[in-house]
Amino acid sequence: MKIAVSQINVTIGDFAGNTAKIIEQSRWAEKEGADLIVFPELTVCGYPPKDLLEKHSFIKANLEAVEKIAKSSGKTAIIIGYVSVNESSNGRPLFNSVGVLQGGRIKYVQHKTLLPQYDVFDEARYFEPAKKHELVEIAGRKVGLTACEDLWSAHQFAGRRLYHDDPAKVLSEAGADLIINLSASPYTIGKQKLRRKLISEISSNYGVGVVYCNMVGGNDELVFDGRSFITNAKGQMVYEGKAFEEDSFIVDLDNLSEIAEPRDMPRMEEIRATLALGLQDYMHKCGFKKAVIGLSGGIDSAVVAAIACEAIGSRNVTGVLMPSEYSSKDSVEDAKILATNLGMHTSIVPIGEIFNAYKDTLDCSKDPKSVSVVEENLQARIRGNILMAVSNRDGALVLSTGNKSELSVGYCTLYGDMVGGFALISDIPKTMVYELARQINQGSIVIPENTIRKAPSAELRPNQKDQDSLPPYDKLDPIISAYVEERYGVNSIVEMGFERKLVEHIISMIDRNEYKRRQAAPGIKITSKAFGSGRRLPIARKYSEE
Amino acid sequence: MKIAVSQINVTIGDFAGNTAKIIEQSRWAEKEGADLIVFPELTVCGYPPKDLLEKHSFIKANLEAVEKIAKSSGKTAIIIGYVSVNESSNGRPLFNSVGVLQGGRIKYVQHKTLLPQYDVFDEARYFEPAKKHELVEIAGRKVGLTACEDLWSAHQFAGRRLYHDDPAKVLSEAGADLIINLSASPYTIGKQKLRRKLISEISSNYGVGVVYCNMVGGNDELVFDGRSFITNAKGQMVYEGKAFEEDSFIVDLDNLSEIAEPRDMPRMEEIRATLALGLQDYMHKCGFKKAVIGLSGGIDSAVVAAIACEAIGSRNVTGVLMPSEYSSKDSVEDAKILATNLGMHTSIVPIGEIFNAYKDTLDCSKDPKSVSVVEENLQARIRGNILMAVSNRDGALVLSTGNKSELSVGYCTLYGDMVGGFALISDIPKTMVYELARQINQGSIVIPENTIRKAPSAELRPNQKDQDSLPPYDKLDPIISAYVEERYGVNSIVEMGFERKLVEHIISMIDRNEYKRRQAAPGIKITSKAFGSGRRLPIARKYSEE
Repeated sequence: MKIAVSQINVTIGDFAGNTAKIIEQSRWAEKEGADLIVFPELTVCGYPPKDLLEKHSFIKANLEAVEKIAKSSGKTAIIIGYVSVNESSNGRPLFNSVGVLQGGRIKYVQHKTLLPQYDVFDEARYFEPAKKHELVEIAGRKVGLTACEDLWSAHQFAGRRLYHDDPAKVLSEAGADLIINLSASPYTIGKQKLRRKLISEISSNYGVGVVYCNMVGGNDELVFDGRSFITNAKGQMVYEGKAFEEDSFIVDLDNLSEIAEPRDMPRMEEIRATLALGLQDYMHKCGFKKAVIGLSGGIDSAVVAAIACEAIGSRNVTGVLMPSEYSSKDSVEDAKILATNLGMHTSIVPIGEIFNAYKDTLDCSKDPKSVSVVEENLQARIRGNILMAVSNRDGALVLSTGNKSELSVGYCTLYGDMVGGFALISDIPKTMVYELARQINQGSIVIPENTIRKAPSAELRPNQKDQDSLPPYDKLDPIISAYVEERYGVNSIVEMGFERKLVEHIISMIDRNEYKRRQAAPGIKITSKAFGSGRRLPIARKYSEE
Repeated sequence: MKIAVSQINVTIGDFAGNTAKIIEQSRWAEKEGADLIVFPELTVCGYPPKDLLEKHSFIKANLEAVEKIAKSSGKTAIIIGYVSVNESSNGRPLFNSVGVLQGGRIKYVQHKTLLPQYDVFDEARYFEPAKKHELVEIAGRKVGLTACEDLWSAHQFAGRRLYHDDPAKVLSEAGADLIINLSASPYTIGKQKLRRKLISEISSNYGVGVVYCNMVGGNDELVFDGRSFITNAKGQMVYEGKAFEEDSFIVDLDNLSEIAEPRDMPRMEEIRATLALGLQDYMHKCGFKKAVIGLSGGIDSAVVAAIACEAIGSRNVTGVLMPSEYSSKDSVEDAKILATNLGMHTSIVPIGEIFNAYKDTLDCSKDPKSVSVVEENLQARIRGNILMAVSNRDGALVLSTGNKSELSVGYCTLYGDMVGGFALISDIPKTMVYELARQINQGSIVIPENTIRKAPSAELRPNQKDQDSLPPYDKLDPIISAYVEERYGVNSIVEMGFERKLVEHIISMIDRNEYKRRQAAPGIKITSKAFGSGRRLPIARKYSEE
């Protein structure tokens, strides 16, 4: 049995484009003599469609696309994900479905049973779960069809199984020769290892091969990393597709011999690729060609600029240097060297005159020895305004450069350095920004050594250093990670070896700054818990972590 | 049987405060000889607790509070809502529970069965549904306990029943003498009529009285309007509690005679009360005492200022007038008259010098005849910066003044007039802002007639009027409402009698401005579909409504 797997990059709602891609790939599989071709979850409409699912016209366009693909189908079975309608008058209105299209028609439909409803996932908002999981015969084999979460029943989420049903078990016990899984599984650190382990255990426990097809591409906060793979009935991986790009491959299940080496990447290379793909797709799918970045000479903007140049080409990236009287000479120099290394445009817009006009109008003290919080924020906001003016003038997307550490504790100015349409590194802790910088500098120096070496500073008052206001990042970051990602309380974090007062102080800052994050630009999720749609907290509350 | 109902205003996570209030109210009921006292859904932790539910310490504090309340309980049964733990190793980790506390202990626990997962609701993210609904004996009666959505099974959501189970039916068929419902049902226009109808139908269909206790108070975007009520077995309402304030009352079920008049309010009065309570609670629960508003002389800021003065007292509200060369004399005068009428402080901060500094620095054209979008946005952003500077200086919350019409079509500047911690009227369409203004002016003129009469203008270039860029609001608003609230497509809206080109133009503006709304401040939901947590759309997509 020859199986084609096609991990494609679809755009949400682009029914014409997605359909054309699916038909083109299916023709290739047919030409190659494949018995079937597998696409990712919700191939036809893209993932996650969110509340677009509440539009009748969206569902209709999706069903028309399926009809069109079905009509184009020949001998090779096309296995796609799409949205179907729950014809019952009870229950949620839609199903997340897997369709088998063959010989010009829809041959079989299996709905998804397990609907994820944690972190960024909201599937129970729209979809009714399948009532049963049954086998379908394709090319003489009994095939079980599943969508993503359907194979995660055995997984422990924070120490428990979230689901009562287990489609893998049901299908195996019914005598499946093969299980196919259409996924839209977003990248997080270590996720591919987890997927391999989970699917491999299903394969070996039930003695059944699994074809796992994962989506590739960025959609707002999420980056799907592809890396579709196939396991044999012993749980061994016999093929793994490419990471972070479209890939199509054919495996003959009756002629399996080699065990595939996992295509692992060094962690920082992987994260860099995630950010580059996420940015590229966000811009492309939103219709932006150019980006603009405020270059401070610091490490955050340097890393954002380097990845932006990689993602969309340096000729499309402009750096704006906005020095003030508190900017060191080094900063301007470092930013210029970076831009030269990257081959990107820069412009210099000093903020002094505007800052003075504000101070004059607002009657601020003019004594530079006592720069108030008001004045610090004003400088950040002037820079934000300048970037937005450049954005308005050039039609360029502003990339904000704040990292996860800053965003966690609120060491950032709303409408100031938080300005931007996309927050590329908002899920990257400061210590990891350094790691990324070193990764980027492998081979040749792109980010000036001085940018990496010097103590981080917002340069909003004379001789300011981040460490005047914040604990050292090598203490801050593990505490943020424990609190935000692992959801540990104060006591558990203290048990990890941190001082109670420090832990309480950091957690209080994190909690207090929920309102800032609510107005932050979307950014790319790389950890198990990013700020954004996967972390939902009330702002008005009276609760201190104990 | 004497039933006390206590619709209280709790704060999310304020276990000490909420517990004290519950105990105090329970003592009152006991003193009055009530057999039981009913509180709203999730009384102990507040609603919606959102991802605070993922914190072990939060759940623990909530259980300790329940223990404390149980210990305090005597003869009167205390019926409260709280979060309990799913001890099974399968399924979601928590239950949304109703507890009966009596004689110093937890006597009975009933979990919620129907978990809403639409609009602003996310309960399936956290809670496992109850496996069964059973009766509990209280004061010799067989009582059925339900939480909110449990009684909404028969309701048609967009033409369909969302649920398969029906706790009201189960409990009635088991022989319930009485059904009690603990609710956290947020206000939307017309909601109370719907609640009365729904509960009345349950009562008359099953011949059983219902005690409906609804939460009161604001929590971020949601305002709970109280108006708890009791129906007799014929479906008649025998008592209705106050709207928009805490209220406690006792009804003797064995001595029912009078049929209660519904406490209906004129629509605009109701909406005004919603906004005032929502703002008051947001500020109080976030710890703010003072608010600051940019006063343009226009109707939006006038309505926001009037409601703010009502909510927190005019001595706590500051209006900042920020005229430019494009501001008419009228505007400044109107703003001053408004402030005088309201008795609020004002300050005047002209933006000319700052604007010139930007134009000079950014090398903008200085010809006033061709004010560019860049310059229009700059003015709005300068005003945003000034408001934030005042906020930083005075510790005051900035109230943004954008209405739903502007926010829909993106007729607002990100980081400019969208600046603020709370967007009081972001769910109020412009035409309704006028209705609110007339409501506020009932009795005596607060908002100057000129503010109401003149053509709306952003005053960002000479002689600018909203209607230069937008369709008239009396056409715009119904189309926005049809598209956003009713989720109609183009064709359906055209069938309502609007020109296709206009409909397509407006819908395209709405879709295109998703990115702005993603960074908007939270505002108060009053319609069936507000922007914010109840409307979740991808930004990167390629889909045009047909």
